[in-house]
Amino acid sequence: MPVTRIAIREGKTPEYKQALMDEIYKAMLETVAIKDGDRFMAITEHDEHAFAYGPFLGLKRSDDLVQIQVFWAPGKAVDAKLAMYRKIVERLGANPGVRPEDVLISVVETAAENWSFGNGEAQFYKLPDHEGVPA
Amino acid sequence: MPVTRIAIREGKTPEYKQALMDEIYKAMLETVAIKDGDRFMAITEHDEHAFAYGPFLGLKRSDDLVQIQVFWAPGKAVDAKLAMYRKIVERLGANPGVRPEDVLISVVETAAENWSFGNGEAQFYKLPDHEGVPA
Amino acid sequence: MPVTRIAIREGKTPEYKQALMDEIYKAMLETVAIKDGDRFMAITEHDEHAFAYGPFLGLKRSDDLVQIQVFWAPGKAVDAKLAMYRKIVERLGANPGVRPEDVLISVVETAAENWSFGNGEAQFYKLPDHEGVPA
Repeated sequence: MPVTRIAIREGKTPEYKQALMDEIYKAMLETVAIKDGDRFMAITEHDEHAFAYGPFLGLKRSDDLVQIQVFWAPGKAVDAKLAMYRKIVERLGANPGVRPEDVLISVVETAAENWSFGNGEAQFYKLPDHEGVPA
Repeated sequence: MPVTRIAIREGKTPEYKQALMDEIYKAMLETVAIKDGDRFMAITEHDEHAFAYGPFLGLKRSDDLVQIQVFWAPGKAVDAKLAMYRKIVERLGANPGVRPEDVLISVVETAAENWSFGNGEAQFYKLPDHEGVPA
Repeated sequence: MPVTRIAIREGKTPEYKQALMDEIYKAMLETVAIKDGDRFMAITEHDEHAFAYGPFLGLKRSDDLVQIQVFWAPGKAVDAKLAMYRKIVERLGANPGVRPEDVLISVVETAAENWSFGNGEAQFYKLPDHEGVPA
């Protein structure tokens, strides 16, 4: 159920942007057990006065920094998340060719009841009475 | 106090975009007890290489997918949230005409102290000593 | 470790946008003990049909509303957050000249394990066994 938001500097090719989304999706498939087709992403593109970064933690970032925000429900194991960070960096390094220092990832978790994937239904919320599952 | 972020494919008319915001706001008024004027929204528009979706949970989504992220403080009842999902889908179906499968909603909740609605004040944070309310 | 997202109406100058980012960063340095270079920001710019606001809480907002979302890890003291709101308003009032009513700030906190600042590492996650720190 990840919803992913990616912020980059403007000026990249269609192929470059497509590769960002495709490779992040593959990295998630390989590490955090998402299902096929569970890819909801959007990239925003920013000019130099609408995009900022710094050398936090001593890393030499560049204008190619990829700021990735992932939103999903709680329940992913820490090890799976750590593996996802590594795999995203590995895959983006190979295609479209992003330096490891230029991959910034953060994850926000929000309860299963907070997701409606279509049709106005909360597909992952189990009603306590109806389903016999504690809230 | 919702802050709403909406991601869509580019190319929609002004009327279409305005309808998205107006109808989501009305759906919130009708279901989650927001106050008049509590509408803070922004739509980002994306080309085909900056917008991704898939058939997660078997739903047939299209380029008209509306990815909605709602941020507010904790305290909304689950039933109210479930009603909001249904009402957003109903209203967007009527105007501007979005298929139910193309409405993706997620909600992120963050503490009352984390909101400043203007003037640098945290309007919903009650000071423990001053107000006599436990933190 | 803040990641900051800023939504404004389109049409502002490069200097205006740069000032928003620079002054928010300075306000954070002065109030919430971030480190030098810990600035990861992106501004999205929206036309009139992709940007909404209202008079919530009786504040008279304008098209110059600056919608600021800050994402970081838990641990900031409430007092520091309250000081940050005031300082952001003060600084944006001086440069580029934003009315106090037009500064909307929200903060989302997400666990230390949810952050990878580069190289695929989770720099703020302490392994329980390795580091002797409870998870």
